Amino acid sequence: MDNKRIISIGFVILFFVSGINVIAAQGKSSGKRPNFILILTDDQGYGDLSINGNPTIKTPNIDRLALEGQKWTNFYVAANVCTPSRAGLITGRLPIRSGMQGTKQARVLFPKSKGGLPESEVTIAELLKQKGYHTAMIGKWHLGSLPQYLPLNNGFDYYYGLPYSNDMDKVDSVPYLKAITEPRNEYFQVPLYRNKDIIEKPANQNTLTQRYTAEAVRYITDHKKEPFFIYFAHSMPHVPLFPNPRFAGKSARGIYGDIIEEIDWSVGEILKALKQNAIDDNTYIVFISDNGPWKLFRELGGSTGPLYGAKGNSYEGGVRVPAIIWSKKNVFAGQVTEIGSSLDILPTFAKLAGVDLPADRVYDGYDLSSVLSGSSNKSPRDEMYYYHADTLVAVRKGVYKLLLYGNSEVGYPDALKKLDKPVLYNLNEDISERYDISDKHPRTVQQLIALLEQHSKTITRVEDQLLK
Amino acid sequence: MDNKRIISIGFVILFFVSGINVIAAQGKSSGKRPNFILILTDDQGYGDLSINGNPTIKTPNIDRLALEGQKWTNFYVAANVCTPSRAGLITGRLPIRSGMQGTKQARVLFPKSKGGLPESEVTIAELLKQKGYHTAMIGKWHLGSLPQYLPLNNGFDYYYGLPYSNDMDKVDSVPYLKAITEPRNEYFQVPLYRNKDIIEKPANQNTLTQRYTAEAVRYITDHKKEPFFIYFAHSMPHVPLFPNPRFAGKSARGIYGDIIEEIDWSVGEILKALKQNAIDDNTYIVFISDNGPWKLFRELGGSTGPLYGAKGNSYEGGVRVPAIIWSKKNVFAGQVTEIGSSLDILPTFAKLAGVDLPADRVYDGYDLSSVLSGSSNKSPRDEMYYYHADTLVAVRKGVYKLLLYGNSEVGYPDALKKLDKPVLYNLNEDISERYDISDKHPRTVQQLIALLEQHSKTITRVEDQLLK
Repeated sequence: MDNKRIISIGFVILFFVSGINVIAAQGKSSGKRPNFILILTDDQGYGDLSINGNPTIKTPNIDRLALEGQKWTNFYVAANVCTPSRAGLITGRLPIRSGMQGTKQARVLFPKSKGGLPESEVTIAELLKQKGYHTAMIGKWHLGSLPQYLPLNNGFDYYYGLPYSNDMDKVDSVPYLKAITEPRNEYFQVPLYRNKDIIEKPANQNTLTQRYTAEAVRYITDHKKEPFFIYFAHSMPHVPLFPNPRFAGKSARGIYGDIIEEIDWSVGEILKALKQNAIDDNTYIVFISDNGPWKLFRELGGSTGPLYGAKGNSYEGGVRVPAIIWSKKNVFAGQVTEIGSSLDILPTFAKLAGVDLPADRVYDGYDLSSVLSGSSNKSPRDEMYYYHADTLVAVRKGVYKLLLYGNSEVGYPDALKKLDKPVLYNLNEDISERYDISDKHPRTVQQLIALLEQHSKTITRVEDQLLK
Repeated sequence: MDNKRIISIGFVILFFVSGINVIAAQGKSSGKRPNFILILTDDQGYGDLSINGNPTIKTPNIDRLALEGQKWTNFYVAANVCTPSRAGLITGRLPIRSGMQGTKQARVLFPKSKGGLPESEVTIAELLKQKGYHTAMIGKWHLGSLPQYLPLNNGFDYYYGLPYSNDMDKVDSVPYLKAITEPRNEYFQVPLYRNKDIIEKPANQNTLTQRYTAEAVRYITDHKKEPFFIYFAHSMPHVPLFPNPRFAGKSARGIYGDIIEEIDWSVGEILKALKQNAIDDNTYIVFISDNGPWKLFRELGGSTGPLYGAKGNSYEGGVRVPAIIWSKKNVFAGQVTEIGSSLDILPTFAKLAGVDLPADRVYDGYDLSSVLSGSSNKSPRDEMYYYHADTLVAVRKGVYKLLLYGNSEVGYPDALKKLDKPVLYNLNEDISERYDISDKHPRTVQQLIALLEQHSKTITRVEDQLLK
């Protein structure tokens, strides 16, 4: 594994065409509604793609998405751990509005939790179904494991995957650390569902990525004639890491790299299926992670690249994720440094599919479609609120980020610490959050504190789901 | 400057061709010796390119080199500060062999230094001249400023540039920190040379990058019919940062980004000139930095991306640099994770030009041409020795790096500290040097210590040039 030369298989021929702000978004296929594939990885860091500077992991397929589509470098998730991040993603609303934000006592849902995404919430799938979309959820759900909370009750026509994280349902006889560092399938009694039924327990995790991918490819093939939405949420690189034998030991980065390279392979299979079914022209792919890497597990966790922090804290490395939005013809290619968020995916898909958003609730997402098409070079989003469970810990407005709470660099499960005084960073010039400039910009500090207060007034607390 | 959307102008159309280890290196132009352009930046970090994951700096031209050529992600310079790094680069020999390594007292040459690259050393330019190459040095030299040490006495037919760093020759009346953070041309009385003559003092640094570039373009045009070698060493992003008005305030990254984007523009001009003169088929470009970013100057310094450390220390961020080797037809495109070094450039160019290396001295460089052409996927280099001035502080062999000395993360001018016991990192799996695994691999530790001892025996101390 040492010193293996890695030649990314992409990048072989590149035609270089100059020209900024040319509207490249042509070829919208004669009124047919576009398909959407939302690929979510679990605990993958900002720095865990070749195209984001990783020195050892090889991701030619994902890099290709980035080169043909838009690579967003300031793209945020709604929370720094799984459940609330996913709740924000699927509803376009901050998890605190749905009771899915968690608390200090319970930051994510566990197998025994009685709560889940409230029925009153409208998911991306429910919204798209109004326009005749077929919808599938493949992979990790983690928005409630009681029957009423599973994907088929949340707008999905089909479900194949795990109801929660792949490190859950651990057998009592093996200590957690051992189970993670020397994993065996039988240590984790996680159930694999098809629709409403458990079809395997414990799931054979070594074949999970391969089987998820086969399901997605089959779904694409079966539904090529109608608009569809696939929410494809990989169970890894969340620990325990179970690569398929085809990938085990193949990456220069070790087992973590094996997993990412298998996910990259999976992305390649999706692209191939779109092409083979001649729907690559009319399909959008979004590729993001749910939060930063789990640094607690050292080499078994990923890299934040230049960003400080990790899963479970609100430094950039915890919440700024690798993010690519691709469509073969309908996305203007390039690197986008505007601010975007997983909260924006619902409004963006709704716009592209021609669905109106429900008017009876507050949305925290923005429609990014004008940036995707290249018709605007300005994101409608210019701010981001950072929640840590039910505590509002930071805000970004423009280039400035104000943090009221600190945490350890390693993050989860370390605890939040209220800072003696807020710190201010210029995130564009100080990408690693090293240099507090609050003393130089007291007015900005005041403005951001006012913004936090203003935002807090929009929040109506509802019943917490994660403590139930 | 806030929230500017940046669309890299490259990446618009990418044809994706699968296939590893296909020899792409065809089209070697009928026996004509290739041209070489060696572009060296000053204090640019590993993370300061879009293609290496920088979230805010836009480098479409350099990214294009990386996509059409080879991006090396484990590429090292010979030292962690300017003078010794450049001495290693231009001679293919560790600076300690030429007396250019420096000491604790003087780590680089200063305007009053009486030393320089010894006449007995053979530079890349001297070597290529044996095969009829025309040679130009454009930019920062820093290998001795007395007349006998200047480029025209080191194998170059032409010289246009500064003899040392752009923060030198400072006027006494302005404190150093003020001169760097609020720079004015008149604070730095650096002389601009053409050949043997000073033509401007102080050099107008705001036009330096533009003028260097114009010189390079003119040289390319004038010498298109004969083989040439241009050593193009930018004076920046070394502080003080003087962007041209065309670029000032344009980058989302602030003034440091303005400088990098101006350098990127310069690379684009070089590419254009090669194309216009129809010699892009037969020219190699190497793009590297001389050492890591100078973090002491905070936002005025660059980013190491995922790497720990900075200019002036021997963590990866101090010595692993952005590195691209391009040739339109003769380099097999892809990301290379094999180990390479600036020490290897001389033997590689020599091989490509058909020159034999002098047999009367020890070379520390390897010929990388087989990796460039794609005929091999294994670098001849499998180790790297890390010197800090005249102290051998670390060694890498395969994936393992053993460090005997520590330093501050911020680096220069902080001091070296001997560690109580050596630390061992697996650089492939632990790219940020966080997890000492020496206890788990005692045999590897012993082997690497033996390697250091063996290497030390090959060193014959010569007169130190930097204290003279």
